[in-house]
Amino acid sequence: AHQLFSHVPRPKPFRVTNADRSVKKGMMADGLLDLLNKVSESLSSDDIVVLVLEEDGTGVDSEEFFQTLPENTVLMFLEKGQKWTPCSTSPSRNLL
Amino acid sequence: AHQLFSHVPRPKPFRVTNADRSVKKGMMADGLLDLLNKVSESLSSDDIVVLVLEEDGTGVDSEEFFQTLPENTVLMFLEKGQKWTPCSTSPSRNLL
Repeated sequence: AHQLFSHVPRPKPFRVTNADRSVKKGMMADGLLDLLNKVSESLSSDDIVVLVLEEDGTGVDSEEFFQTLPENTVLMFLEKGQKWTPCSTSPSRNLL
Repeated sequence: AHQLFSHVPRPKPFRVTNADRSVKKGMMADGLLDLLNKVSESLSSDDIVVLVLEEDGTGVDSEEFFQTLPENTVLMFLEKGQKWTPCSTSPSRNLL
């Protein structure tokens, strides 16, 4: 039964943020391409270069890897020239 | 049932980074050789010497040990002459 589902990806919820984390949106997508298209649409931008995991900047550029992401994974989209940076609002877990 | 699966390794997600941790990518691999091949391809490089655990530099050079790694383990690939170094407690935060 599990295998059936892996061949028919259903739309899953993701949370998508921008490079400075000022905006975050919930979006449904059944695949990497689908999500990239939706992000581009919602930005009316064609400059999306890549999606990375918000938590550690891992580049998500293969459909297979994308399919392993759990629901509600936070992804960051990067436009040309933008880079992932660690979340600066809580760098100080160590300081507590 | 468990034993069946151990004979038919399925691709698992890994996160692969380079020696200076400037790039990290999600990749699927069903084994050590598979991952080494994919890394070499994606770098168009034949100089990959070894994969090590990002967290502590443990060399991963046997297929059996590789199979014990959990999903989304972060691996670092080293090219000729490169060495693992500990994560310098957030290099990029200092640059901001």
